[in-house]
Amino acid sequence: MAAHVDALLVSSLANIRYITGFSGSSALALISARDTLLITDFRYATQVREEVGDFARVAIESQSLWTGLWQLLPELAGVKVVAFESGQLLHRDFERLLNAGGRWQWRPTSEMVESLRERKDPDEVACILEAAEVARRALERTIPQIGEGMSELEIAGVLEHSLRAEGSEGFPFETIVASGPRAALPHARAAGRQVGAGDFLLIDYGAIVDGYCSDVTRTFVVGRASDEQREVYEIVRGANALASANVRAGMTGRDAAALARQYSEQRGQGEGFGHSLGHGIGLEVHEAPRLSKTAEAALPEQAVVTIEPGIYRAGWGGVRIEDDVFLDPSGPRILTSFPRELMEIA
Amino acid sequence: MAAHVDALLVSSLANIRYITGFSGSSALALISARDTLLITDFRYATQVREEVGDFARVAIESQSLWTGLWQLLPELAGVKVVAFESGQLLHRDFERLLNAGGRWQWRPTSEMVESLRERKDPDEVACILEAAEVARRALERTIPQIGEGMSELEIAGVLEHSLRAEGSEGFPFETIVASGPRAALPHARAAGRQVGAGDFLLIDYGAIVDGYCSDVTRTFVVGRASDEQREVYEIVRGANALASANVRAGMTGRDAAALARQYSEQRGQGEGFGHSLGHGIGLEVHEAPRLSKTAEAALPEQAVVTIEPGIYRAGWGGVRIEDDVFLDPSGPRILTSFPRELMEIA
Repeated sequence: MAAHVDALLVSSLANIRYITGFSGSSALALISARDTLLITDFRYATQVREEVGDFARVAIESQSLWTGLWQLLPELAGVKVVAFESGQLLHRDFERLLNAGGRWQWRPTSEMVESLRERKDPDEVACILEAAEVARRALERTIPQIGEGMSELEIAGVLEHSLRAEGSEGFPFETIVASGPRAALPHARAAGRQVGAGDFLLIDYGAIVDGYCSDVTRTFVVGRASDEQREVYEIVRGANALASANVRAGMTGRDAAALARQYSEQRGQGEGFGHSLGHGIGLEVHEAPRLSKTAEAALPEQAVVTIEPGIYRAGWGGVRIEDDVFLDPSGPRILTSFPRELMEIA
Repeated sequence: MAAHVDALLVSSLANIRYITGFSGSSALALISARDTLLITDFRYATQVREEVGDFARVAIESQSLWTGLWQLLPELAGVKVVAFESGQLLHRDFERLLNAGGRWQWRPTSEMVESLRERKDPDEVACILEAAEVARRALERTIPQIGEGMSELEIAGVLEHSLRAEGSEGFPFETIVASGPRAALPHARAAGRQVGAGDFLLIDYGAIVDGYCSDVTRTFVVGRASDEQREVYEIVRGANALASANVRAGMTGRDAAALARQYSEQRGQGEGFGHSLGHGIGLEVHEAPRLSKTAEAALPEQAVVTIEPGIYRAGWGGVRIEDDVFLDPSGPRILTSFPRELMEIA
């Protein structure tokens, strides 16, 4: 525990899962040198015992998690100063700490558990690798079933069905299927638009295995690719390959992002390159570290990060190619293996 | 605007969508008597203009939404006191208000937009009804394709594929497919368990149409139902029917919940009835009002609420039947129409 703090109140569900193993959607944890307390509600009474075992003292609250906290905190002898997660606690709940929790002193902290989560141990890397493999197999199943005339929603449905069939526990984010000019919208959700010949078809999706996420993007052309489509595609592919091969632990997130940006700019395509290069993945699909022009921190060893350069032109379309890369001390290891060559689909 | 407040900072994405129509995943809005400002990032530059039109002044921020706010706020003449959403703002961002936003006075507010959202206008009810219809058709497609020997994950995949094929924009929550003893876990996610003869099969899922959610649960028996299964099922079905027929605007959430609870208790099944009876649905799948034993507020007219009684026995299984009900001033109108009679599936 940090100096001058007797305990840490954990309100982030991903942090609670990381520490205790509990995967439910409603919980608070309190960690002191002596005790780990976990408070959840009726819906998880059976599940929490299966997942947590003897690791934590578990309380099931029928009213509210906070009621449980105010009942249990006084039982922890010697706990006077408690840290809380400033980036994971709503202002409304902060006011609870000051009011109902006025007997204790509360100290905001930031990223305490998140910084531990940046470095993945071998079991965690194995889960992310398996989530990447599930994503690859699902896309392989999907490609022969999709093509011209289908709507983006239908394509999303085929892909999500394939992800489930390959064992994904869920979807780490809303599947993006964006075709034609909609491929220029980096965060388009799937919609009713029918895919036509000559369209870009951008698919950004992921799988979940034992709570760990993969996050993959591939961009296809429906029918025959035009010269302009090929040109843009190959620049993105080159930027992806260069950044994936050269990203290193110890490099700042800004320098990592510059790898791909410089490659594109040298080829006259800096303009359409608006978002960051990538982000950490793990129990959450967006977590530390960040790879962007404002990220001054060094990338830690054993992080898993996305490398996802893209070029977008409003009204015309866009290309993004995204892989998941483990920053092994010996060098980057790409966990996602679906081919990156331009693929024309029927 | 409320007395003594010149503007409202809206940080809830659902509230931002309700007010401005913008559906992206990153935004802040500032609403004063004269202006509506909307700040988002590069990824949504095209989408935000399509969705919002002239309704709001839009700013695209390349650094952070907060940087944009501190640039725009000084341009709003006469704005000195700004309300913020206490239940929708992280403590970390509250500290930004006090520091970077120290020129303004900040007042916590609660549920200002949420309380408007409780009453649905006819367009909103039409969207929820369509989301309920999509959910019905998807389950009708699914039933003939599932049965003994399939895993919960595979069943979820078939259902999600059907939801997409029927036009769902996404999944309002992680699909629950819980079989056998796992049906006793009210919030089980789908897992690898294979469905066997004699199992309960509980499916809790929903669709999204124009941003509005449906939320439906049906429980089946795989193969032939035992007498005990039938008995528990019929009590839940009776509780669902009674509550759906008698829930009224003006009744407290507690009294609504008591309708179903008393029905079950009179039949000796009060014990397994641990969660609340329901919740509002709309742009979010869980929103105000609540229907539970601690909900003192009266249900508003034109709310849409779930009615979802359940009985659970650890190690044995569970039954839940959930419908979506519009509280029309003339009486409840059930929007979800998949049959509720016990169905034995192959």
